[in-house]
Amino acid sequence: SEMIYRVKRCLACLAVENCSVSVSRSMASKTQVGFIGLGNMGNPMAKNLIKHGYPVIASDVFPESCKELQELGAQILDTPADVADKADRIITMLPSSPNVMDVYTGPNGILKKVKKGSLLIDSSTIDPAVSKEMAIAAEKMGAVFMDAPVSGGVGAATSGKLTFMVGGAEEEFTAAKELLSCMGANVVYCGQVGTGQAAKICNNMLLAIGMIGTAETMNLGISRLGLDPKLLAKILNMSSGRCWSSDTYNPVPGVMEGVPSVNNYQGGFATTLMTKDLGLAQNTATNTKTPVILGSVAHQIYRMMCARGYANKDFSSVFQFLREEEGQ
Amino acid sequence: SEMIYRVKRCLACLAVENCSVSVSRSMASKTQVGFIGLGNMGNPMAKNLIKHGYPVIASDVFPESCKELQELGAQILDTPADVADKADRIITMLPSSPNVMDVYTGPNGILKKVKKGSLLIDSSTIDPAVSKEMAIAAEKMGAVFMDAPVSGGVGAATSGKLTFMVGGAEEEFTAAKELLSCMGANVVYCGQVGTGQAAKICNNMLLAIGMIGTAETMNLGISRLGLDPKLLAKILNMSSGRCWSSDTYNPVPGVMEGVPSVNNYQGGFATTLMTKDLGLAQNTATNTKTPVILGSVAHQIYRMMCARGYANKDFSSVFQFLREEEGQ
Amino acid sequence: SEMIYRVKRCLACLAVENCSVSVSRSMASKTQVGFIGLGNMGNPMAKNLIKHGYPVIASDVFPESCKELQELGAQILDTPADVADKADRIITMLPSSPNVMDVYTGPNGILKKVKKGSLLIDSSTIDPAVSKEMAIAAEKMGAVFMDAPVSGGVGAATSGKLTFMVGGAEEEFTAAKELLSCMGANVVYCGQVGTGQAAKICNNMLLAIGMIGTAETMNLGISRLGLDPKLLAKILNMSSGRCWSSDTYNPVPGVMEGVPSVNNYQGGFATTLMTKDLGLAQNTATNTKTPVILGSVAHQIYRMMCARGYANKDFSSVFQFLREEEGQ
Amino acid sequence: SEMIYRVKRCLACLAVENCSVSVSRSMASKTQVGFIGLGNMGNPMAKNLIKHGYPVIASDVFPESCKELQELGAQILDTPADVADKADRIITMLPSSPNVMDVYTGPNGILKKVKKGSLLIDSSTIDPAVSKEMAIAAEKMGAVFMDAPVSGGVGAATSGKLTFMVGGAEEEFTAAKELLSCMGANVVYCGQVGTGQAAKICNNMLLAIGMIGTAETMNLGISRLGLDPKLLAKILNMSSGRCWSSDTYNPVPGVMEGVPSVNNYQGGFATTLMTKDLGLAQNTATNTKTPVILGSVAHQIYRMMCARGYANKDFSSVFQFLREEEGQ
Repeated sequence: SEMIYRVKRCLACLAVENCSVSVSRSMASKTQVGFIGLGNMGNPMAKNLIKHGYPVIASDVFPESCKELQELGAQILDTPADVADKADRIITMLPSSPNVMDVYTGPNGILKKVKKGSLLIDSSTIDPAVSKEMAIAAEKMGAVFMDAPVSGGVGAATSGKLTFMVGGAEEEFTAAKELLSCMGANVVYCGQVGTGQAAKICNNMLLAIGMIGTAETMNLGISRLGLDPKLLAKILNMSSGRCWSSDTYNPVPGVMEGVPSVNNYQGGFATTLMTKDLGLAQNTATNTKTPVILGSVAHQIYRMMCARGYANKDFSSVFQFLREEEGQ
Repeated sequence: SEMIYRVKRCLACLAVENCSVSVSRSMASKTQVGFIGLGNMGNPMAKNLIKHGYPVIASDVFPESCKELQELGAQILDTPADVADKADRIITMLPSSPNVMDVYTGPNGILKKVKKGSLLIDSSTIDPAVSKEMAIAAEKMGAVFMDAPVSGGVGAATSGKLTFMVGGAEEEFTAAKELLSCMGANVVYCGQVGTGQAAKICNNMLLAIGMIGTAETMNLGISRLGLDPKLLAKILNMSSGRCWSSDTYNPVPGVMEGVPSVNNYQGGFATTLMTKDLGLAQNTATNTKTPVILGSVAHQIYRMMCARGYANKDFSSVFQFLREEEGQ
Repeated sequence: SEMIYRVKRCLACLAVENCSVSVSRSMASKTQVGFIGLGNMGNPMAKNLIKHGYPVIASDVFPESCKELQELGAQILDTPADVADKADRIITMLPSSPNVMDVYTGPNGILKKVKKGSLLIDSSTIDPAVSKEMAIAAEKMGAVFMDAPVSGGVGAATSGKLTFMVGGAEEEFTAAKELLSCMGANVVYCGQVGTGQAAKICNNMLLAIGMIGTAETMNLGISRLGLDPKLLAKILNMSSGRCWSSDTYNPVPGVMEGVPSVNNYQGGFATTLMTKDLGLAQNTATNTKTPVILGSVAHQIYRMMCARGYANKDFSSVFQFLREEEGQ
Repeated sequence: SEMIYRVKRCLACLAVENCSVSVSRSMASKTQVGFIGLGNMGNPMAKNLIKHGYPVIASDVFPESCKELQELGAQILDTPADVADKADRIITMLPSSPNVMDVYTGPNGILKKVKKGSLLIDSSTIDPAVSKEMAIAAEKMGAVFMDAPVSGGVGAATSGKLTFMVGGAEEEFTAAKELLSCMGANVVYCGQVGTGQAAKICNNMLLAIGMIGTAETMNLGISRLGLDPKLLAKILNMSSGRCWSSDTYNPVPGVMEGVPSVNNYQGGFATTLMTKDLGLAQNTATNTKTPVILGSVAHQIYRMMCARGYANKDFSSVFQFLREEEGQ
């Protein structure tokens, strides 16, 4: 089925490239694409653009991050403004809201030299309110801004199987999808600017709740009530307790293969990054006056884990955090 | 596929009946089976025993609960002790721990007249510690006690598609499964006495956490961030936020068909029952010194809902509880 | 002792006025003071300035809010900029961060016409980060900004017994205290800009936790465990459970006189305002990566209360919210 | 004032002894008093009885616990039954519910040989439901059972300044108070049997909430917002955030003298004991269907602390637990 999948992906790519012929902006296909932010995620994403035949013009605050891409033929420029001067389609992949604001609206930012009609796609995970601000600032310069955060991690970025959740003007979605499809298996249109971030934040909040819930439940059942871990997982997965954290990414070492829990919680999605996303969810909920009770407590639990040495372990290590033996 | 399913069920029943020939206690097959507790769940369960050809001897504290079964040919007796005097296989289905203690060890309880070698199966959802007590008391009288709580609700009880989670001596499991297979689609052996309850409690705690998490997430995404409900559910279900509450029992009216949320949260699994199960999980966690943070908060949220008029609505009504508009 | 208190207040005022002679900016004493924001709190505060002999120049977005003060002799101007053009000491008392940003840095804001050397005191309760931004913006114009949020409510504002928590340059504190002492009984210097807000936010977060804790405890003790409410309050208050919410502002009707709980939770400090302050605490904690577990849950509980009709009741109504009888 | 206090205590003792002359059971004054449970608390309590002139007959499961008391003239017997055979007033001070059940109703328990009319006072902190069971069992034997848990710790037990919260028949309170006044500064009548435990549980739940709230608040204010610890404590204590944990037992090292936080959280009230009391509160709340949201979360926080090496530190160490620096 992996082969079938790959064939489907190929067809999908072809389909995108074919249909792009009929779309105005996509006439620019195979012309240069800008890429700002070559970190753990941005690097493999930009490589996938090159693999699909796009000439890439890139920039990063750390010059050494650019070497690998340069060797693959990418042109490296000093600032986001320089990139915007040359490319009319730019993808940004940055750690947090302040970086995004700087790269777009800073003194050497994209908007200093952006061309009219440019398509700017931000794949960072940030506050939806900041996405909206960037969109307004871009519009003033005659450019189009879309938010397109991803789910899937470094592995999916490398294999080109990310999921993109895209917010912005619907008429620009086809053009955005053309580029994003080179880097992801799913490109989902979510609505107006900011809704991509909203979907991402919502998913990760529910993910965190499900993971902590799974860890608490497995700990209660196996450490204390004498159930076999695999048996308990099996029962949950055939019942209403089933969730992604129980059936796909089980936090208990030994229950499943190929997940961080069997590798001492190395790799995967770091607790500190989950905590950042829960902070965004919390700020968004507070600003919109929405009660998110379990979301808040999940945020605080991951916050405590960061304070106690789990910051760089996979977020499923909450099982380890909870199961330590009670003193005395 | 429903037909295929039914055929498989039939084969399963045949298999059970055939193999029962080779098991000692199952020689008693088609002899009388006792049934104590003919409430919403017990009534359809007992009927399914009759459908499978078992003569049933039943008892309930409310005589009127017995009428329907009597018309189907069941013999009705006054007390659990009377039933134990006649049947050496008895199933009990009762609301809570005190009822179970009374039915087994009370002045007219099963153990007053239980026959040596009897098989006593309790399908109530109660504290695992009480199950263990009952097992010890039964053993003193030369009888075998197993806990076998169910998941699946009145619908599954009626259609004979319950899941039974069974705890007790492994060598008795075949005999128990013979009877339980008449009432359920899945009969899972969990381990020693009490582990059936443990599995049930664990599943329902994770279920409650997932449901509240789903309700919070959907509310944040649709009421406040402008996402379309069906789109958000679709995104969650193809991502790591996926859980039974998001993909099978979505709490937002209109996202799915055939769930309580489209029927004003009527039917389904009442908030008050979920609250009871969370109370069991909480007591168990406290008594075993296990941290269950989200489990505790979920318990308290359902507790508050009971206090505010949601006791008899389906437990997915937590979405309604959260989404009321903020005053001013 | 009330009389002694009043005498002490008088002496305090004299002291302030006397010592002000020796401080440079205070030479301006009895010259005009600007006041922006004449709401429930700002109105009585400005009146107290007039009572102490200060000519007041005021402005508010709602002209009708200014009438009463105008009759007392205050000069009313159209915009904050107009006020800044005439007065070099200005106090602002506004509902939330966006209002503060608009009044200081908006197109008709104070900073458009502020005089060099002006003292700007903001008594609003807002995000400390916004206070710092305003201070930087003021400094660029050669003015001094201090944050000085209050505790005490409308009653204390009217009687001139507010507590001011002041953040800003220490050498400006004497000048600020001169004005603030006309409106408050306590003026506490907290440290650099933003620390006044920090102290206010911290106090109110602990207050919310104590109030909910008191309500839960009283409800558990009296509704369920059969303790007399006054007796339980007495025991708590002579023991380690004692807190301001148990001994000064008890949320159970009938335990104390003169508190909102005996007046159907009318008056006092509205749930919606407490929720706003908890939102500030939450945002601050998230932005500074501080775990505030009970603070988060308290926030969410008040958020839920706002959604369920308690927005305008006193925040001690959490007792009523919790104690509703459980349905079956 | 300490001297004044001691004089008042003396007068109080005299008053109790004088008035005892007029009360029937108290005619037994200065006759033997039984004491079961000579642990950290029971030992100094029994000594105070001896100091006040009561001959003590004691028993403990660990014979070595009895040595010190024996040297002071107490008679040591093997079992609670033996003590009940000789003394008609008995005080019990035991770790938990199962110990109390064993000491009263076990095979060598008090009730095996209790004399009609005996007064049995249990100062253990246990489930109020167990207290009620013991009272019923005692009544069947013609004896009177009262629950009288204490607050105050080992220091107060040694100095005779405990607070006793007493539940039971009101007409027996005078007799109980005669004995308890030798060991405590406050003896408060709470109502029927079990209400002493209820008051104790309520107080400690609110105490835990206040302590965690204070720790979170101080941590937010000082570690992150730059407030001076002593200044923040001062502001809270003059404002509505004030509570016992902020003004009498501050958890931040250096803010106050003579509290465990200045002694690396040694001594005081161990986290594991607070966790036990919160477990009782949780069980009681669950069994009475009372929502205790912050109470639940506080319970879970202390549960986690026990799992992470804080079990034997003072419960104010929650400040240390929260303030660890965030990784990365």
